[in-house]
Amino acid sequence: MTDHYELTMLQAALQSGAAHRTCVFEVFTRSLPAGRRYGVLAGTGRFLEGLQNFKFSERELNFLAERKVVNEETIEYLRNFKFTGNIYGYAEGEIFFPHSPVLQIEGTFAEAVILETYLLSILNYDSAVASAASRMSIAAGTRPCLEMGSRRAHEEAAVAAARAAVIAGFTSTSNLEAGLRYGLHTIGTSAHAFTLLHDTEEDAFRAQLDSLGLDTTLLVDTYDVEKAVRLAVELAGDQLGAVRLDSGDLVAQAMWVRELLDSLGNQKTKITVTSDLDEYAIASLAAAPVDSYGVGTKLVTGSGAPTSSMVYKIVARENSEGVMEPVAKASKNKSSVGGRKNAVRRINDSGVATAELIGVDVTAPADSNDRELLVDFVINGELQPGFTGAEGVRAASTRHAQSIRELPRNASRLSAGEPVIPSEFIVKEQTN
Amino acid sequence: MTDHYELTMLQAALQSGAAHRTCVFEVFTRSLPAGRRYGVLAGTGRFLEGLQNFKFSERELNFLAERKVVNEETIEYLRNFKFTGNIYGYAEGEIFFPHSPVLQIEGTFAEAVILETYLLSILNYDSAVASAASRMSIAAGTRPCLEMGSRRAHEEAAVAAARAAVIAGFTSTSNLEAGLRYGLHTIGTSAHAFTLLHDTEEDAFRAQLDSLGLDTTLLVDTYDVEKAVRLAVELAGDQLGAVRLDSGDLVAQAMWVRELLDSLGNQKTKITVTSDLDEYAIASLAAAPVDSYGVGTKLVTGSGAPTSSMVYKIVARENSEGVMEPVAKASKNKSSVGGRKNAVRRINDSGVATAELIGVDVTAPADSNDRELLVDFVINGELQPGFTGAEGVRAASTRHAQSIRELPRNASRLSAGEPVIPSEFIVKEQTN
Repeated sequence: MTDHYELTMLQAALQSGAAHRTCVFEVFTRSLPAGRRYGVLAGTGRFLEGLQNFKFSERELNFLAERKVVNEETIEYLRNFKFTGNIYGYAEGEIFFPHSPVLQIEGTFAEAVILETYLLSILNYDSAVASAASRMSIAAGTRPCLEMGSRRAHEEAAVAAARAAVIAGFTSTSNLEAGLRYGLHTIGTSAHAFTLLHDTEEDAFRAQLDSLGLDTTLLVDTYDVEKAVRLAVELAGDQLGAVRLDSGDLVAQAMWVRELLDSLGNQKTKITVTSDLDEYAIASLAAAPVDSYGVGTKLVTGSGAPTSSMVYKIVARENSEGVMEPVAKASKNKSSVGGRKNAVRRINDSGVATAELIGVDVTAPADSNDRELLVDFVINGELQPGFTGAEGVRAASTRHAQSIRELPRNASRLSAGEPVIPSEFIVKEQTN
Repeated sequence: MTDHYELTMLQAALQSGAAHRTCVFEVFTRSLPAGRRYGVLAGTGRFLEGLQNFKFSERELNFLAERKVVNEETIEYLRNFKFTGNIYGYAEGEIFFPHSPVLQIEGTFAEAVILETYLLSILNYDSAVASAASRMSIAAGTRPCLEMGSRRAHEEAAVAAARAAVIAGFTSTSNLEAGLRYGLHTIGTSAHAFTLLHDTEEDAFRAQLDSLGLDTTLLVDTYDVEKAVRLAVELAGDQLGAVRLDSGDLVAQAMWVRELLDSLGNQKTKITVTSDLDEYAIASLAAAPVDSYGVGTKLVTGSGAPTSSMVYKIVARENSEGVMEPVAKASKNKSSVGGRKNAVRRINDSGVATAELIGVDVTAPADSNDRELLVDFVINGELQPGFTGAEGVRAASTRHAQSIRELPRNASRLSAGEPVIPSEFIVKEQTN
């Protein structure tokens, strides 16, 4: 899971000797997707899990040798690869803004450079999903959002998407593998295929109620919604769990289905909707009598922003005398700020965030309310506890909820706008 | 890699007995992404590879039991699961249109229903990438397109994206894992980090040339492009392979860099560009002296259409008397056409495609030039040869190139428009 050029750079740097220079690389984004007011970091736990197994197998090394991707010296280095440096960054689930140093890798050039593709793949995708999920969760208010997008994303991305969605406020997922790997709550009952499989809708509803119980969710829009709702109540009585609407004008439909259910004595039967929802559709359903939202395509594709444009840049390295120096490229539309960053979220006396302070080769000043944002993930190659597996997801979900509460009220606006707080660089004073 | 509801449907259908009815499910899309003139099918080979290992491990079965996702009878069914039905579909790399039956699964409801999420995940993502890649390849004309988007997609999606890109005309990828799995050609030399690692640009260029040879590609926009090009030629002479531009106004830059290289005697040194390209940017560079395009973000996110909106619908099944019947739901904005499809691409005497004929429970009429589109992939559970691994990718790439040549000229227009040929249903005549 590395790009070809990481290994050719490694080869050239091993030959020049520069491969062993200590470096600091940082992950950040130059801007948020157009109109977004904040981003949500996700994927750190998956990266840390993967880093424990980031090794090159003999099959892979043979491929590199046969294809002459790199020379024997480089292959020997990869055979013994183990990351021994330090990793710091924003806690998973944390909000981020342009230039927030969400991950820092400190190690030799050799060990830092070959992580680039792997870690960016994870953070870029997972954060795109979490950032969309957070807006949807906010739009849904207290109603639960259910992740159902697996079929619209690569099969492994689907598992990561479910995880990211739960970090950013979703309550459950349809993806069983995500349930298994990360301890997520999974949900699901039936699709149109189940109704169509049976000779009649009544046969299908009976089969489902017999097998899954009266509190199941019946899908009522295969043929005629009104007939299906009446049939569902006739068969299940007032204990029917929920009905699901997956097509048509959801607002109008939810209104009259609610009235119909109530008139039949099914005040406790819930309504769940699942048709092409995004944060705007969810917001437009706020006044409709809907109990939960199933979200698919728009969630797993980041609701218009399917990747997070995070980049991985070298910001400091030892020079030939062994002294650490800031470095940055000067390309026209892609310039970077050199030097190791740290970061503080400025919090005012009302507990509201007012700025993202990013110190460059200097500690960002902090008042008593302010929050330090960098966490120790890996020290001298040793993973610190609490960031991976189901435990990591729970912690990230809690972190996300806390960070959201701290943002100014504007953060929850869905209309396009600037980042809800500014990112401010704090630079060391020059002494001439 | 299944959705929770597939297994609850299985449980209810096992209990009602309907699980063992023979069914036909089909994969199709109701429409192409807005403005697209054709789609490219990709992922079939990956699905067929995965189907060979589509089993439920004891760890997974324990999870289903502990979480009470399904009952013991269902778990027992899953423990012994093996697909024994038939799979037909469009050859991988084939062009598709709205309602093209790109994959058909024939088997019991039980064995067909649990494949839904897995196969849609694969086809939806891979086809999104291939469809974008095809437009980019056409825009690039005879210049090679290189896939470099791994970092902007989930780490496993990145491998699938590289594979889909090569099927749709890309010549190579930066993703080494994709090279290993599918025999793809991989490429890469160095990033800005390599230049910044060294004390000077000269040190960096020297290190790269020493290690990778004079025919390497030097990245010349870390500091000052003109100085870097002059330095590169000074160090490598006229054997320098290529220079890479990754920022700024690429058209203008390519022009003067080409002139500079020529004036220095480096007529053979190539120029490759890699900055945020999509099919439109590639088209706008057609007149610029560029030799190859490195494409990243826009490729792996489907250039505005990150998924293909393919659905998996039951279209026919046995009734309680064992007779096959067409079935379809009647939902308001999501109706389907029941009945098993077949498909023919109508080709006129000039060899140009004029229509996608989709027969519904009837063979679509074919003239001598017309092309039957359905291929046998799996018969009675047995995978037919030639569709998987590196062999499958090569065949798909060839199929794609042939199908593209057959399309009307309008297919290559990048401006928004209707599908380049219409999809026409051929329905059995009703006998009353």
